[in-house]
Amino acid sequence: MDEVESKASEARIAYYVLANLSTESKNKALDKIAEAIWAKRDSLLASNRRDGEESRRLLARGDISEAILKRLQLDEGKVGGMVEMVKSVARLEDPIGKTTYAVELDDDLELYRVTTPIGVISFIFESRPDALSQIASLCLKSGNSVLLKGGSETKHSNKTLYEIIRDADTSLPAGWIQLVETREDVRSLLSHDDLIDLVIPRGSNSFVKYIQSNTSIPVLGHSEGVCHIYVDDLADLDMAVRVCFDSKVQYPSVCNAVDLILIHKDVAGSFLPALVERMETRNVEMRGDSLVCDVMGDRVKALADTDLGAEYLDYIVGLKVVDSLDEAVSYINRYGSHHTDAIITENPEAAAMFMDYVDSASVFWNASTRFADGYRYGLGSEVGISTGKIHARGPTGLEGLTSYKYYLKGSGNTVDEYIGDNKREFKHQPLGKAWMNKKHRRI
Amino acid sequence: MDEVESKASEARIAYYVLANLSTESKNKALDKIAEAIWAKRDSLLASNRRDGEESRRLLARGDISEAILKRLQLDEGKVGGMVEMVKSVARLEDPIGKTTYAVELDDDLELYRVTTPIGVISFIFESRPDALSQIASLCLKSGNSVLLKGGSETKHSNKTLYEIIRDADTSLPAGWIQLVETREDVRSLLSHDDLIDLVIPRGSNSFVKYIQSNTSIPVLGHSEGVCHIYVDDLADLDMAVRVCFDSKVQYPSVCNAVDLILIHKDVAGSFLPALVERMETRNVEMRGDSLVCDVMGDRVKALADTDLGAEYLDYIVGLKVVDSLDEAVSYINRYGSHHTDAIITENPEAAAMFMDYVDSASVFWNASTRFADGYRYGLGSEVGISTGKIHARGPTGLEGLTSYKYYLKGSGNTVDEYIGDNKREFKHQPLGKAWMNKKHRRI
Repeated sequence: MDEVESKASEARIAYYVLANLSTESKNKALDKIAEAIWAKRDSLLASNRRDGEESRRLLARGDISEAILKRLQLDEGKVGGMVEMVKSVARLEDPIGKTTYAVELDDDLELYRVTTPIGVISFIFESRPDALSQIASLCLKSGNSVLLKGGSETKHSNKTLYEIIRDADTSLPAGWIQLVETREDVRSLLSHDDLIDLVIPRGSNSFVKYIQSNTSIPVLGHSEGVCHIYVDDLADLDMAVRVCFDSKVQYPSVCNAVDLILIHKDVAGSFLPALVERMETRNVEMRGDSLVCDVMGDRVKALADTDLGAEYLDYIVGLKVVDSLDEAVSYINRYGSHHTDAIITENPEAAAMFMDYVDSASVFWNASTRFADGYRYGLGSEVGISTGKIHARGPTGLEGLTSYKYYLKGSGNTVDEYIGDNKREFKHQPLGKAWMNKKHRRI
Repeated sequence: MDEVESKASEARIAYYVLANLSTESKNKALDKIAEAIWAKRDSLLASNRRDGEESRRLLARGDISEAILKRLQLDEGKVGGMVEMVKSVARLEDPIGKTTYAVELDDDLELYRVTTPIGVISFIFESRPDALSQIASLCLKSGNSVLLKGGSETKHSNKTLYEIIRDADTSLPAGWIQLVETREDVRSLLSHDDLIDLVIPRGSNSFVKYIQSNTSIPVLGHSEGVCHIYVDDLADLDMAVRVCFDSKVQYPSVCNAVDLILIHKDVAGSFLPALVERMETRNVEMRGDSLVCDVMGDRVKALADTDLGAEYLDYIVGLKVVDSLDEAVSYINRYGSHHTDAIITENPEAAAMFMDYVDSASVFWNASTRFADGYRYGLGSEVGISTGKIHARGPTGLEGLTSYKYYLKGSGNTVDEYIGDNKREFKHQPLGKAWMNKKHRRI
């Protein structure tokens, strides 16, 4: 048994207890964890400085960028933010133990479908240490054990933060949170579909792609966010400029920023000059097809084949003229990544067509693509954004960390009674009540 | 582009149309398909006789069993059953276009989560041809395209049935249903996670296991159903005998039949003689641990290590004495397949403990394990029973063939307004309405 196997096995045993904790116990534990992080912030910041020193050596050698170095640095304000985030998870509604289906199958035979945790969740991240406390909190609130693996640039911070959470003054079952540290551990982890139920990766496209193609464990997340806006012939063009500008420049390095704008041919002549002028105020590099270049000249570069389906994560945007809404929809379904796509139009028919036929997790009408986010959607803290259609799709909150099970309460019922000549018939009557409260919880 | 690739691509294009069909169009198509199957029953029965002749040659060589040969044979009555099944899918509620979350994010910014199909579903089956018409109907009703691969023993029946459905007098988009026929096609199919969204296998344990471990496409189903009953010290012992007997002999060759019965030590002496006597009436082979054998002598064989976690699919059952409910729960979580497990007790506390701590898709109190089934659960026709916890768990109906997407309706909203000093706050008010009706449907 290697290290990952023993840690995942411990996590699975802890999960059986965690799955049945009361909401009160879980919230109390979250508050204790928040307190512990704040109380031990000096030790966390010291570890983070150590990461910083090692990373500066990597920076000097050109192995990492200044931006990465800056992103991994914590200060007291950022630790305060982490603490608030943990506390906010305590205030979220408990997703576990909810009855979502209740049917009387027959007299004295009642069926209930009740939400449960999933089991052991592995969170593999390249990003800042605050992702660790966020996902650990969300797993705890949803009754799941968690197996963490962070990036090597923040290994000291991750280890200290993990120890603070593990050792906080809670009555949680030992082993519910686990940390693995080496690359070999990741390989082992991805092979254990017998012990790990779900992997959540957070990092660069190539990192997420690597995870997705090297495990048979279900993965919740997305590698690419290739987002489009289609400016319809019946668009309010001032609105279109405003929404396109926000979708590109408000935060260009994230998955829900727009990558390519499709423009109906009838409005290209009037829309393009206004859009280009606005984009130029923030030095956005624009790449247009030949029709766009005809209108805008050398203010716009030429769009290459490699730009189709490209995710820029930068101040770059593609521009393309289309003959019709149908062409826009086909283009998006072919080149997009099924993440978030928007239409700007005053025509409700066109909006409905676009939104129904574009096969993406989020489809927007007259709004910035940047709204695609769990917090903005009112889902609470975001677990991730999924571009897959199985289990969870789009921005995913706590609900994405749940499964369910069926509780059947009988009175000695046998299936034999429902077979043959004098067989009983099922009633299948909705029951207007939830599965009973659980009074046996041990903690 | 190989054959699977071109067929799956055609299916994907058809899916974009299928996804947006009205309920009425889909139901009309189902009725037309049902009519076509009945009208062309002679041709289907002729193909089935050809399969029968080829299979009899295999039987003569000992390559297949008499039971398999019998199972694949169709007659007019069975075709009538298939037709009724297709019609019954038309009567099921349409799972697509349902608003499951509706929130006003801010003034004139409304978010709706609406159920959608998944895309292209592949159904790979070893079982009888009626599985083909069942899954094709369920995919159609849920707006999914379907790529079928049946067993070679019924290849003529499958092809004819596929052609009848494909050529029925409907206005469905060409390509929505596809058939592939060779083993090489299966290998190609399992590699195309870019074109196929979900695989549903139906067949033997080893067949399902092979599919699960040879694809990165999500798989809906289960390989094993290792089911347990725990007879508590506070059980009604007459009820326990009745339920155990039904769980074993009512239909032993299916996944939800009981494999091992755990008996609390305090009732073993009185329960075992009654149980064994009842099981002997149907010649059930019983295999007990040493305590059971002490009580029952050579009426019970010895339980071997290989019996722990075994799925018998036959008139065989394991018997084991335990010291406590806790031991029963631990045993089941270790050796079970998380399918269906039951407790027999008059003690509600014990029932709640058992049902909460046993980590299975279905947990029953005083009822036969044989109730674990989509039709009995009132879910309509069953797509499959999942022992995984991602997407769908337990008996799964039409809902398992759905995903969802987020519709956001704005008025030119930008994220920039929600950032900085004078930022707007989100309202996140529930909206008491559904996403608008779609009037643009093309068919």
